[in-house]
Amino acid sequence: MSYLGNHMLNAADFHSSDRGFGMKYLNTVNKTWVLSRLTIEMQEMPEQYARFSVETWVESCMRYFTNRNFCVIDDDGLVLGYGRSVWAMIDTETRQPADILSVNDGAIMEWIVNSRDCPIEKSSRVKMSDRVRMVCQIGMNYSDIDINGHVNSVKYLEHVFNLWDVDWYKHHHIRRFEIAYVAEAHCHDTLSLFIEDVSPLEYCVRIQKDDSTEVARCKVCFEAYF
Amino acid sequence: MSYLGNHMLNAADFHSSDRGFGMKYLNTVNKTWVLSRLTIEMQEMPEQYARFSVETWVESCMRYFTNRNFCVIDDDGLVLGYGRSVWAMIDTETRQPADILSVNDGAIMEWIVNSRDCPIEKSSRVKMSDRVRMVCQIGMNYSDIDINGHVNSVKYLEHVFNLWDVDWYKHHHIRRFEIAYVAEAHCHDTLSLFIEDVSPLEYCVRIQKDDSTEVARCKVCFEAYF
Repeated sequence: MSYLGNHMLNAADFHSSDRGFGMKYLNTVNKTWVLSRLTIEMQEMPEQYARFSVETWVESCMRYFTNRNFCVIDDDGLVLGYGRSVWAMIDTETRQPADILSVNDGAIMEWIVNSRDCPIEKSSRVKMSDRVRMVCQIGMNYSDIDINGHVNSVKYLEHVFNLWDVDWYKHHHIRRFEIAYVAEAHCHDTLSLFIEDVSPLEYCVRIQKDDSTEVARCKVCFEAYF
Repeated sequence: MSYLGNHMLNAADFHSSDRGFGMKYLNTVNKTWVLSRLTIEMQEMPEQYARFSVETWVESCMRYFTNRNFCVIDDDGLVLGYGRSVWAMIDTETRQPADILSVNDGAIMEWIVNSRDCPIEKSSRVKMSDRVRMVCQIGMNYSDIDINGHVNSVKYLEHVFNLWDVDWYKHHHIRRFEIAYVAEAHCHDTLSLFIEDVSPLEYCVRIQKDDSTEVARCKVCFEAYF
């Protein structure tokens, strides 16, 4: 699932780069994309050795946020699942929100696709109660860190999915996953993962730093294999 | 570097599958490839967003081992580095070595390339003295485990490379890396990493399980950036 998430983020990068509002260009004007939310819902996971494609399109764009969707299809064009993402743009010097529509004269607006549906629920605000328990603490290392010195978006997924055992995954697959990125974590940060059991197949996880700052919050919904 | 290792292993899989001695076919006759050694030596690492290709060929094959080489080239055909690997074949039921030449009437022998040089040193037996110190213990989790229930070959690299800091990698790159896989580790195993400083730029690492069984042994040679 985390590899699939990575493919989606790569697809977003290719799609935006080819259209004049990609990460590489943005860096030249001191701006960058920041992933704010990612939701993936899979009806079926691609099997080992199976070829699949990730399609992506921009659903909408406001001044400070844009919604980008994904569709995962197999080699016969059959839909395996969908993804939704929310992105902000920031100024890399001030770290303040930047106006997405100011980039290349609003180039992104030419690429909004109204005609295509993304039939999975939007990301919701994941609510957590006090009935949480701390399940592990993980030090962030070299392999967790991206080129900007932050913990890589997909690495959070990996750490969250590690909360369940290999044996659990023999009988369950992740049907839906959503994560909201709240603050940045860095190398040397120790992250604490707190879990809340919503139901036997549904869990919420809060990730926080040493100083209790919340870094990310997510929800994992499993489905049992028959 | 670990992603690059993954690309090499994928290239090996594609190359052997297309020629009748790949993992997927082997599984149908209760056999599988086991990676025994992997060595990578890079003159230059591909940059972010750079396109590169991995070429692979079989250098030689005996009854129980085969040597497979790799070459990493950039989009202009310039060589960035090379890899060497040694593979054994085992019977998946008895876990005993299997005769590679018995597969598809020795299909692999038709693909031995004598004409191509791989100008990096062969893997050596990494010698370690008693001057080692234990640097960390890491529990193996879901994301470390491959489809066969073993710790994934490339995940060892990731854990070893994590022994150095992000700041170290700002000033050093891995020039040469070699690993010998000695025994299999599984989910729930806690691995202990022991390091020996050979020189300021050269380190040996032994990975062992709780019961002191050696799992892998490797050598990392860095080069400082100027």
